[in-house]
This record gives sequence, C-alpha cells and structure tokens, in this order.
Amino acid sequence: MNKKIKNRINIGLIGFGTIGSGVARFLLEKRGLLFKRTGIDFNLSLVCDKDLSSKRDVNLPKEILTRDFDKVVNDPAVDIVVELIGGIHPAKEIVMKALSKGKHVVTANKLLLAYAGDEIFKKAKVLNREIYFEASVGGGIPIIKAIREGMVGNRFSSIFGILNGTSNYILSNMSNQGSSFKAVLKEAQLKGYAEKDPSLDIKGLDSSHKLAILSLLAFEKRVDIKDIFVEGIEDISSFDIQYAKELGYVIKLLAIAKRYGNELEVRVHPTLLPSEYLLSSVSGVYNAIFIEADLVGKQLFYGQGAGKLPTASAVLNDIVDIGYKVICGNKIAKPVTPKDSEIKNIKKMDDVVTRYYAHFSAVDKPGVLANIADLLGRHDISIASVVQKERREAHIVPIVMLTHEAKESNMQAALSRINKLPAIKKKSVVIRMEK
Amino acid sequence: MNKKIKNRINIGLIGFGTIGSGVARFLLEKRGLLFKRTGIDFNLSLVCDKDLSSKRDVNLPKEILTRDFDKVVNDPAVDIVVELIGGIHPAKEIVMKALSKGKHVVTANKLLLAYAGDEIFKKAKVLNREIYFEASVGGGIPIIKAIREGMVGNRFSSIFGILNGTSNYILSNMSNQGSSFKAVLKEAQLKGYAEKDPSLDIKGLDSSHKLAILSLLAFEKRVDIKDIFVEGIEDISSFDIQYAKELGYVIKLLAIAKRYGNELEVRVHPTLLPSEYLLSSVSGVYNAIFIEADLVGKQLFYGQGAGKLPTASAVLNDIVDIGYKVICGNKIAKPVTPKDSEIKNIKKMDDVVTRYYAHFSAVDKPGVLANIADLLGRHDISIASVVQKERREAHIVPIVMLTHEAKESNMQAALSRINKLPAIKKKSVVIRMEK
Repeated sequence: MNKKIKNRINIGLIGFGTIGSGVARFLLEKRGLLFKRTGIDFNLSLVCDKDLSSKRDVNLPKEILTRDFDKVVNDPAVDIVVELIGGIHPAKEIVMKALSKGKHVVTANKLLLAYAGDEIFKKAKVLNREIYFEASVGGGIPIIKAIREGMVGNRFSSIFGILNGTSNYILSNMSNQGSSFKAVLKEAQLKGYAEKDPSLDIKGLDSSHKLAILSLLAFEKRVDIKDIFVEGIEDISSFDIQYAKELGYVIKLLAIAKRYGNELEVRVHPTLLPSEYLLSSVSGVYNAIFIEADLVGKQLFYGQGAGKLPTASAVLNDIVDIGYKVICGNKIAKPVTPKDSEIKNIKKMDDVVTRYYAHFSAVDKPGVLANIADLLGRHDISIASVVQKERREAHIVPIVMLTHEAKESNMQAALSRINKLPAIKKKSVVIRMEK
Repeated sequence: MNKKIKNRINIGLIGFGTIGSGVARFLLEKRGLLFKRTGIDFNLSLVCDKDLSSKRDVNLPKEILTRDFDKVVNDPAVDIVVELIGGIHPAKEIVMKALSKGKHVVTANKLLLAYAGDEIFKKAKVLNREIYFEASVGGGIPIIKAIREGMVGNRFSSIFGILNGTSNYILSNMSNQGSSFKAVLKEAQLKGYAEKDPSLDIKGLDSSHKLAILSLLAFEKRVDIKDIFVEGIEDISSFDIQYAKELGYVIKLLAIAKRYGNELEVRVHPTLLPSEYLLSSVSGVYNAIFIEADLVGKQLFYGQGAGKLPTASAVLNDIVDIGYKVICGNKIAKPVTPKDSEIKNIKKMDDVVTRYYAHFSAVDKPGVLANIADLLGRHDISIASVVQKERREAHIVPIVMLTHEAKESNMQAALSRINKLPAIKKKSVVIRMEK
C-alpha cells in the first residue's frame, strides 16, 4: 500500500471562455508558485469547451482538450471539476454529475447557486464533497473566505454591498460627469463594462443573486431569490444624483441584508448614503462589502468585482483550499448550510422601515407643498428637510424632501395618493436612504 | 481501535488579561455556534495566568485555572496552546516549549514574531506543527488569511497599511480639531486609546513589527526589523496637517512595502496621501491595508485594528483553522516561510525615490526662496509647487513646497545644507508623499 501522501491534484476545467482561459493560463504559469506556497502540485489535466478553435492567450497541449464534458466528470484521475460555463443549464447537470462521480467542484456561477444552490449543497454534503464558489461574489475579493473562515466566531448583524461593478460604474460616471443614465450605459457598453443586454446588472438581479449567497454564509439562511426585494438603477436621473450630492449624499446600488433577531431583511435598490462613508467613496467598476458583526464590529472589503484576472485569482484560491482537503483524505467537512438557522423569517418589504429621499414634480402654485406634506403626515411619514428651488421647466418645480424613518407600506400608500394629485405632473421619485 | 474521527479540540490558554479573558469568554459562549459551523467541539481545557484573583467578565471553573504554564504545555490532552501574554519573555519560551511538546500554537504577539519569528517558524516546520497569528496584524481584519489563502495565486507588488490605531486616532483628531499632537495624545491616553508610555505606537515601531509580518507573508521574505526605516508621528504639527489639507492631502502613518523586481522597499513614516484615496478616509482607531497584486489588482481591507472583541475574533479563526488540521491528522502543512524568496535585497532608505512635502521656516527677506530652490536644484530635486503665505510669527514665514520625485539621500543632503542657511530659523519639516 502506498502510504505516501498524494500531493498532485488533477483539475478538470469546463468552460474555456474569458474566465476559463484565465484560470488555465494561471494554473500553468503559477504551477511552481503554488507548489512553493502549498506543497501541492496542481495539474490542469483536462479542459472542455464546445469551441476549441477560437484563439486564447494560453496554449494548451491538444491531448488535454475535449468537447465532451462527460469525459471530464468521468475521468477517475480528476480531483476537482471547475465549472466556468455560466448559466443554469448545462452547468447544473455538470456540477451534479461531477459531485456524483466523487469530484469536488469549484464554480463562479452565482446564477446557478442562487437558483439551484439548495440541491447542489445538499448533494455535496451527502457525498462529503466540497463545492467552493469564491469567484461568485466580489471577483477577487476573498469575501466568502472572510465570512466563512475569517470571522467564523461572529454573529453577523448586517451586510451592505456594492456587488455589481456595471451599475456602480454607471452611477459613478453619472455623478462625475452629470450625464444621463442612457449616455453612460452606452459608454459602459463600448468599454466592455456592460453587456449588450445589461438587464441582469442594471436591474439589480445580479446583486440579488450575490446577496443570496452572502446571506447563506453570514446568516446560514437559504434566501429564495423571490423573497429579495429588487429595484434597479434605470430610473435614477442625474437630477437626483446632483440633488443628493448637494444634500451630502451619494446614490449607490446597494445589496442590503439586516438581521433583527430571528428576522432577516434582504433588499437591493438604489440608496442614498452619506458622502463621508467609506462605501460612498467606492467608485467605478469596484465592489465593496461592508459588514457588521458582534466581535469584529465594522469591516469593509474592497476590490475589483469582476474581470478575468481577479476572477481567476478567486478560482485559484478555491482550487488550493480543496487541494488541502483532498490531500488530507477528504476528512475536513466545512458545512456550507448548517442544519438550523436562527433566521426564521424574511421580512416583507412592506414592513421595512427606512428613511426616504423623495422628489416630486409639481405645478408651481400655492398649496401644493401643503398637500404633499399633509398626505405624508396622514401616512405617519414626517419630513426631515425640504428643498424647493426655483422652477426649471415651465411651471413645474422640483420639490425634494428627506423624510424621517417610515414604513415602506406607508410610503407606498402616500406616494400613490400624491401621484394622483392634479398638481403632480410626473411620477414621483423615491429613493431609500441608509445611515 | 477507535476509527471515529476525533472531533474535540482542547485549548490551553496562557495569558488571562484583557484579550485572554475575551477569548475565554467567547470560546465558552460560542462553543455551540462553532460546533454548528465547523462540526468540531472546541473545549477550553486549561487557562493560565500568574494573576488568578482579578475580576474578569467570564467565570471559569476553578479546576481549569493554573498559575503554572508548564502544566498547560505538558498536558497531553491539550491540542492548541494560545499564547496571549505578550512581550518576548517568557512568551518565546512558552511557544517553543509548546511546539516541542507537539502542540499547535496561536499567538497575537507581533513583537515576538518580529524578533523571534525565524526561530519559531523553523521549529514549527520541523515538527509539522502550526503557528497561527491572525490577531498580530489588523485586529479582527482577516488580513493574514486574505494574503496567505485569499490571494494564494498572486504575486504582490505593494502594501500600504494604516496598522496602528493609536497613531491614526491622533492624526485624525489633530486634523479634525486642529489640536496639537500633545493635546490629542493626552486625550487618547484618557480614553484608553494610547498607553501611558505610547512610544511603541507613536514612534512607528508597532507598525514596523506588523509590516515585517505582512512582508513575510506577501513577499515570503523575512525582513529584519533593523532594515525597516521607521519615523514616528511625534513631530507632525497641526500646521502641516492643515497645510496638507489645503493642498488636497491628508497625513497618515503608513507602513509601506514595495517590490521592485528582486528588491523590497520597507518603511514606516508619516505620509501625505491624496485626500480622495480610500486609505485617506480611514480615520480614528481603525486600521486598513491596501494591497496591489498581479491578479486581484487593488484591494483594501478595513476594520478595527485592536480591542478585546476584534482580537478575540481573530484568535478564534486561528483556533478553528488549526482545529481542522488536527482533525485531519495533521496532514496539512501550509508553509509560512517557503524555502526561497524572490526578494534578494532590502532597499537602503538612501536609495528610496519619492515625492516630498517640505516646510521651511525662514526670515522674510529677499533671496531666501531663491537660496532654498537653488540648493534643492543642486541636489537634483525639482519643485512641483510652492506656497508662501504672509508671515505669522514676527519676520518668520512658512514656505511650503511639494517636490517631484527625488532620491532620499539627495533630499537629506539638501536639507542639511538648507538647515544651515542663516535665514532658516527652525528645523525644516519634510514629509514623504505617496501616490
């Protein structure tokens, strides 16, 4: 019997696109560095993609290339399957099959985890196989590791994340240049920071997938994507950005999770943040995650949230961590989803309490402000400050208010009545605030 | 033979002061949480301190208390020894003995690691025992884990750290209140943010110990403390802070490590940073580490750099990580100090090239500015901007300059000649800048 500790780990990579080719390249280029640092020889043994003819910035020996993912998941020599094709199908089938065949899995696929995480984590647990996914949130920022291992003794109370680089790029540039959403989106698309169909990013969905993953780790709670309130940045105007700035705030697309005892609040929406906050200084395509927990207090993690190199970095971490596990005979079982969460309930958006920035467009005649204030008051919403500047469009004046804390359902009820006032000429804008 | 995997880890704690009592308390309070998250039962089995009579905020059974650290390191049941007494002796003897007896070690002792790390790491390696020290840098920020594991495939190019909360508190408050160094130091001492003898903190030594640890991890280079250039914040005046502010900069005590090929630059000193930088917004007792590496690009980690709870959090991480190792039969060996570093040389401070803020106090008469500029020019230092305001003290005017990049030895030579000019009435102030 060979008693020598196995120190070579074979990696099967499925998905040889931008991220995949980065991972392949750095597995080759950094094989020596990784060996020096870990004592483990990480060997890229198979690479699968349906397209093997496109030019990549890494040259692989032909014999390790295949178009058939079954060849990868069935190969008994492969220890770790790295899934980088994205989307739900056939990524899910690949991951499930790989686990069945005794492989550990690394994936960057937040969509897959958000929609099929339950099933995947359960299967991995039953089979004592690992599924690692550092690259799914925050690109190269080791935020998953920080939450799972770097604050392992902490009870988390809140997470505030700038988790989508595209949206943050758009909002930052709207703020810096005073340009419109449409203009900056077009610019972002030209620069490759936004997809042709940018919906997942700008509508807040991508952030909600990532928030579900962070909530799972920090609150041990499997949050259904449908239970996360999501509002995108499409309706943010440069007017509101400038107004917020004058009032001492910036507008960020925030993914928010807050715990109140056994209840968790999870939401993604544009948010006014005081400009002096560290999160408010996070601009461009960068991501940041601000966390509060009982022992560490406040922490912030900042870095590139996407891109070939940062994502490859995160995938390498996962491969190395699993490598240690394989070498130790698969005895370490870090549960991703403990049996019971202290969270029993996801708060309904209607019950969320927060401050609001409200921007009403009203005809400039006596009594309008009083009408609005009255309707807000009737719904238990008190006004912290009001700014009404001189009219800009003919006869239409913008009235901007900051409210004290109010209940979302009250705000929506008041808003629907205010929008029906004859003096209101445009749909009112309401943006939530955080402190 | 019992084939069941051992899942109880016994912890022997040496040092039952502020941090130690925090660790003891949370090991008890969070035993269930840690078990749920890790599947391991972490049991505090022995606690040692020479003082067992003082009141702590945790009650321990008398039978686990001892005044004799040998009882802890000799107990065959103890898996992990946690050293929290600080200082070099007898901490070093405890750590070495614990390793010899087959224990793994957790410590928060940056002084010990800075001065005896070499010996300790070698011994741990030979004996295949772990020495973990997350709490030694950045308090609760999992920065050691981030560098060693969370960016394991990266080659690091630079580290800029605000690593000393006391100094950062003093500089932030001098900046916010316009107060003098002495006044704010006294305030910090009253609030418990500064020690009675604050030398280690304000003279930059504590930061240099931490920089040595970060350099070891990021650059795999054991840096001798004597090779780190260190300058403290004692001579920073509120005048210079205000002037820097007007020019768009803040002054921070930075620990800097920069790699140039096979050469490493390591230094700790007050530094002018552009105000819009994220690091510049880190105020009060907070710490932050800004890192650049080939794959992740720029990252920043922010949090409380000291205090009972954050430090206990870091110690718990280490205990858990070692717990996994023990459970897997001590087969994982993550080398702390790989055999060879790419760094062959520590750059001499004289050869460092940087920009400078310079503040000269000169008699207000014709030709002084020309004299200074001429001397700088003769030493290859070119001036980027000059501000000379109206005189404040009788006949003495402050002349403030920002230079372009210049060599440290040139700046020191110029400075010594300028300080000898008859028109110069006070020692000139020079503060390095980073971009």
